Amino acid sequence: MAGSYFGKNFTIQTFGESHGTALGVVIDGVPAGLALNEADVQRFLDRRKPGSSAYTTQRAESDTVEFLSGIFEGKTTGTPLAMMIRNKDQRSKDYSNIADKYRPGHADFCFDEKYGFRDYRGGGRSSGRETIGRVCAGAVASKILGELGIKVMAYTKSIGPVTIDPARFDESLILTDPTGMPDKEAAKEAAAYLNDCMSQKDSAGGVVEVVVKNAPAGIGEPVFDKLDARLSQALFSIGAVKAVEVGDGCKVSAARGSENNDAFLCEGDKVSKKTNHAGGILGGISDGDDIVLRAYFKPTPSIAQEQETVNADHEAVSLEIHGRHDPVIVPRAVVVVESMTAITLLDLMMDQMHARMEYLTKMFG
Amino acid sequence: MAGSYFGKNFTIQTFGESHGTALGVVIDGVPAGLALNEADVQRFLDRRKPGSSAYTTQRAESDTVEFLSGIFEGKTTGTPLAMMIRNKDQRSKDYSNIADKYRPGHADFCFDEKYGFRDYRGGGRSSGRETIGRVCAGAVASKILGELGIKVMAYTKSIGPVTIDPARFDESLILTDPTGMPDKEAAKEAAAYLNDCMSQKDSAGGVVEVVVKNAPAGIGEPVFDKLDARLSQALFSIGAVKAVEVGDGCKVSAARGSENNDAFLCEGDKVSKKTNHAGGILGGISDGDDIVLRAYFKPTPSIAQEQETVNADHEAVSLEIHGRHDPVIVPRAVVVVESMTAITLLDLMMDQMHARMEYLTKMFG
Amino acid sequence: MAGSYFGKNFTIQTFGESHGTALGVVIDGVPAGLALNEADVQRFLDRRKPGSSAYTTQRAESDTVEFLSGIFEGKTTGTPLAMMIRNKDQRSKDYSNIADKYRPGHADFCFDEKYGFRDYRGGGRSSGRETIGRVCAGAVASKILGELGIKVMAYTKSIGPVTIDPARFDESLILTDPTGMPDKEAAKEAAAYLNDCMSQKDSAGGVVEVVVKNAPAGIGEPVFDKLDARLSQALFSIGAVKAVEVGDGCKVSAARGSENNDAFLCEGDKVSKKTNHAGGILGGISDGDDIVLRAYFKPTPSIAQEQETVNADHEAVSLEIHGRHDPVIVPRAVVVVESMTAITLLDLMMDQMHARMEYLTKMFG
Amino acid sequence: MAGSYFGKNFTIQTFGESHGTALGVVIDGVPAGLALNEADVQRFLDRRKPGSSAYTTQRAESDTVEFLSGIFEGKTTGTPLAMMIRNKDQRSKDYSNIADKYRPGHADFCFDEKYGFRDYRGGGRSSGRETIGRVCAGAVASKILGELGIKVMAYTKSIGPVTIDPARFDESLILTDPTGMPDKEAAKEAAAYLNDCMSQKDSAGGVVEVVVKNAPAGIGEPVFDKLDARLSQALFSIGAVKAVEVGDGCKVSAARGSENNDAFLCEGDKVSKKTNHAGGILGGISDGDDIVLRAYFKPTPSIAQEQETVNADHEAVSLEIHGRHDPVIVPRAVVVVESMTAITLLDLMMDQMHARMEYLTKMFG
Repeated sequence: MAGSYFGKNFTIQTFGESHGTALGVVIDGVPAGLALNEADVQRFLDRRKPGSSAYTTQRAESDTVEFLSGIFEGKTTGTPLAMMIRNKDQRSKDYSNIADKYRPGHADFCFDEKYGFRDYRGGGRSSGRETIGRVCAGAVASKILGELGIKVMAYTKSIGPVTIDPARFDESLILTDPTGMPDKEAAKEAAAYLNDCMSQKDSAGGVVEVVVKNAPAGIGEPVFDKLDARLSQALFSIGAVKAVEVGDGCKVSAARGSENNDAFLCEGDKVSKKTNHAGGILGGISDGDDIVLRAYFKPTPSIAQEQETVNADHEAVSLEIHGRHDPVIVPRAVVVVESMTAITLLDLMMDQMHARMEYLTKMFG
Repeated sequence: MAGSYFGKNFTIQTFGESHGTALGVVIDGVPAGLALNEADVQRFLDRRKPGSSAYTTQRAESDTVEFLSGIFEGKTTGTPLAMMIRNKDQRSKDYSNIADKYRPGHADFCFDEKYGFRDYRGGGRSSGRETIGRVCAGAVASKILGELGIKVMAYTKSIGPVTIDPARFDESLILTDPTGMPDKEAAKEAAAYLNDCMSQKDSAGGVVEVVVKNAPAGIGEPVFDKLDARLSQALFSIGAVKAVEVGDGCKVSAARGSENNDAFLCEGDKVSKKTNHAGGILGGISDGDDIVLRAYFKPTPSIAQEQETVNADHEAVSLEIHGRHDPVIVPRAVVVVESMTAITLLDLMMDQMHARMEYLTKMFG
Repeated sequence: MAGSYFGKNFTIQTFGESHGTALGVVIDGVPAGLALNEADVQRFLDRRKPGSSAYTTQRAESDTVEFLSGIFEGKTTGTPLAMMIRNKDQRSKDYSNIADKYRPGHADFCFDEKYGFRDYRGGGRSSGRETIGRVCAGAVASKILGELGIKVMAYTKSIGPVTIDPARFDESLILTDPTGMPDKEAAKEAAAYLNDCMSQKDSAGGVVEVVVKNAPAGIGEPVFDKLDARLSQALFSIGAVKAVEVGDGCKVSAARGSENNDAFLCEGDKVSKKTNHAGGILGGISDGDDIVLRAYFKPTPSIAQEQETVNADHEAVSLEIHGRHDPVIVPRAVVVVESMTAITLLDLMMDQMHARMEYLTKMFG
Repeated sequence: MAGSYFGKNFTIQTFGESHGTALGVVIDGVPAGLALNEADVQRFLDRRKPGSSAYTTQRAESDTVEFLSGIFEGKTTGTPLAMMIRNKDQRSKDYSNIADKYRPGHADFCFDEKYGFRDYRGGGRSSGRETIGRVCAGAVASKILGELGIKVMAYTKSIGPVTIDPARFDESLILTDPTGMPDKEAAKEAAAYLNDCMSQKDSAGGVVEVVVKNAPAGIGEPVFDKLDARLSQALFSIGAVKAVEVGDGCKVSAARGSENNDAFLCEGDKVSKKTNHAGGILGGISDGDDIVLRAYFKPTPSIAQEQETVNADHEAVSLEIHGRHDPVIVPRAVVVVESMTAITLLDLMMDQMHARMEYLTKMFG
């Protein structure tokens, strides 16, 4: 498992660079018999497409998906589902000026140290375009979860210092507002903040929150494949993420047990919790409550301000990054967080299918 | 990989429950020729041993390690290194009263939902004792890293609301102060806070910080096995962790690119960074700077106060947890965080050994 | 996965050397709720125990299993099941004379080339005793398969030039005759052949055949985890195996399609085959018919005759191997083949549990 | 790892069906800095291309490879190398007549049992075209091994009853004779045998032998990832393989230890063996001698003779298979065996790079 492979049952192998020929994913372990077409996937891809608002790179890519295998008569066959998106608008010349300079906040230096050289065009494999394959797979995982009555919903929780107010939560805005914020007022403030950043040739960070509704209890494998452990790997694997929280997250460290424990209740025969400080996960296993995580994104490292850095010859140089960059990546990262969450949950749900002798007996006995 | 297995090259398979016969680990992939004896491992185990201070469970366990395989004439042979620790002071009766009740904040309910029943004695596999095998493996990984000049150091950063002051950092206290805090004043405040919690039959949470010094640049595999992605899985797999941060962590979301970017510098021929907001990791790959992570632990869910909950028959009941519990687990978790960090870094360093053609040519050409 | 780990869902991690402290296995992924006790495992271990006949090493080992974890109130809990067997009769002195000589047909030289040195006592990790952990796991897998109505049966098909006659097949002899041959006459001939080998300080090889009855159709994952591909890895991983056949095996290369194709039939609603040249596997997937494999074992390389070889200093030396050796390992290998077959089949059956959307809907919908 | 993924370090994920849009592979773990172009891969693909002789299907496919990612300025970057081949000449109508019938010797019935339905066009995923991705990856692995001075050479050893005579071995014929036999006389006999099979609407099987020259000693991981265990999985994963032998293979079971043991010798400082019954592998680890394996292929199950079978409604029906089929697949399978051998050996060589402390010290110390 050499880095671009994720999962155990519903597995994804992604490929592609920002300025290569194509990007994509091979999903192995898709259950047979799922009705699936390109539109199911395109809907997800369009959510991360560039050029969709003033706050995203103006690179013109239609990012149209093509199915290469794994589908027959509109249904998944159980064999590998390969999907590909060709790069169109590559403009390599935009990047020639940074070919030998290490951009602060980027992986340029690290790639050179790792591999001896790098594809410097648009960041190569470390570009945000790498996430295209994940989103294709996320669309498939989300459709499967949807057929099981499980809903995965991600949205922008904050941009820079601006955070949404749960009291004003309006789900319809997630897909319609350019900030991805489900709060009209916060979105307006965030837009103002972003305009200020852009006017100063600067960039912004933010937070994406993801909520899973109606997930079954009992998902997650003790001890290293805990649901939260695998989800945190999934979210930290997204470029620019520097922190991941589950439920109350960092706050728990200052709380007392009597405050942080969620009392169990009974509603009819169903066990529930009075509160959800745990974010739906106890001991690494889902408890049937909403699963809640947050990923913290750093500001886009590509800024037009002059920066000091070094070049490949280890000489001090100054750098101005021009070309096309997102002043904030959070709105486009929302669907990536949603996708990685769906992929990870589905993968672990499959493990649960053979966790008890009674399940084997029902299947084979 | 059914949950208790971690890693790809330097791999660990742990086993054991709180009140079972024994706990331990099998490490597969230990390089041959490492001088190793029980004392190297016991030193680590003693750091997580119960009963070592007023702030840990009084359960009396010597936690003495026995090597079962993988060593010949004082050196590792390259074959699986199995280590075992027998449980001694099990007192199962202490737990009979909670056999059919779901303790708030614990995994009892989730285990029943997952497996249909559970070993309720001391939390079974979800007990903190599960980490014994990790610490044994961490001792081995740390010794290997030490021979390569790499130092992994974890310590208590905060307990409840009390946080250390970097200006007073005193490394010698990590192993000597019962709080694991490298700051004498903060440790005193923390002790007072813990005494207050205990007097109120309550518990505390806290934060463990880990710093890796002198790690090579270039470690971490794009895209899913990023160094931070794998480390976050490793830390989130430790019971009670609810958040993980790298470098500036959550703070980055409110920063601007011009503040958050670390400028590259040259010191002689070595490339370094003016600041380390990134925590030593860019694009998921180490940059040669200090690697800095933090794990946020929730307060111990076992408290002596009366709590409302439900039982296995899904009836509302009230619960008082007696027996022996840590008012805070953070001080004992320090060595677990250090161990998981060492294991993960070493595992990914091994991947780097075949990342370039020139390395293969040097080895086999 | 550093070599001593096998499987994906029902996974085994073995450990131990011929003259180390102990040998054993950790099974991760045992379904919860299986009634299991030491006797279930001991029954299998006793089938490979040394000293049980004139044709096995006289090393005196009781090979008594101890459960370390994963069991509660007589049932598997779903957590790792660790089992250990202590070495007793080690007599390291027996081996001092070959410490620096490379025994022909053994892995001594290869271990030195791989690891730089080796545990030379009794072959260390390359000893037949390494299979103890596999047999413990095989006992568990076989019990699970048994509860599902599936029977895995291995036996000695031939020893040296002596082969059983299917017409005389007597299953009761498998566990009672020292040769493990289910054919009284062939067993007598084989015994005579073995006595002749022993009188000439020589050793014999043989063939183990394994048959799985009542396996479900549809097991095996295209393309690399084909049922036969994984079974062949499992059998080839047993020391001394130099060939593996499925169904007609080598013979198919000389047959014509019209002879080798098995015609499909209907018995009531059940699809079956007129013949079983395929050995129950088509395209790497079980077809519901008997699964039939054979493993070919080389003669025990340890013989008392003088042999020419080299030592660790790469000087030509002559060697006579004394001490305790099996003149043929086949009878003791029967249970190892049976175990590896059961482990592999069960592991792949678990994959099948999420191969169709309808299975997920039944479980979670 | 859901079946279409193979390897641990140099890993391949294949995709595609006989009549889907495209077939291909994603290789993850290609060392950075390897000079590679499409011609390197096309050379291998052309060896398995259909229509190249009277003994292969007349399906017209150019099988032209396209690189999608992982290459920059003619060198591998260390990121996933994706390669794709589009299907051209699909003629789905040829297959409509067998859409609901189970072809004897094929996986049709097993796929229906496994997945509930299947892509029946040309066998879908179970078609020989599935091997295209493997051959692309094999070309890359072979080029890497070649730069390390290691040569992997496969050829047809026999077709039906006709076997080559080592005394007449002529390597130049492997790539030029339509049978792939390195023996002019045997090739002529084989051609006559094939013509006879074809005239009788029948098909033939055969044997492919692969030899690895100059492989380093010490490759292969005890115990489950033995070099021969992993190679046998690799070869058994190729459709139609029913047996795999290493070195003397099946013959060893009838030999005596004194005959089968290979005496060690010294040539200068190099340790070698007087004979090579072991096929270059002892205890699952390479010994530095030639590695020798054989894969036994069954006759093509698709024959034009009338056959009895059943349909999807489990009714007895008769079947005549028309369309385009290879009377023998062995000549085209040679490059597939060579590819899988190269991939597996390279993958295990990478594991060896961190088998000793001294290797880590050299890299990081």
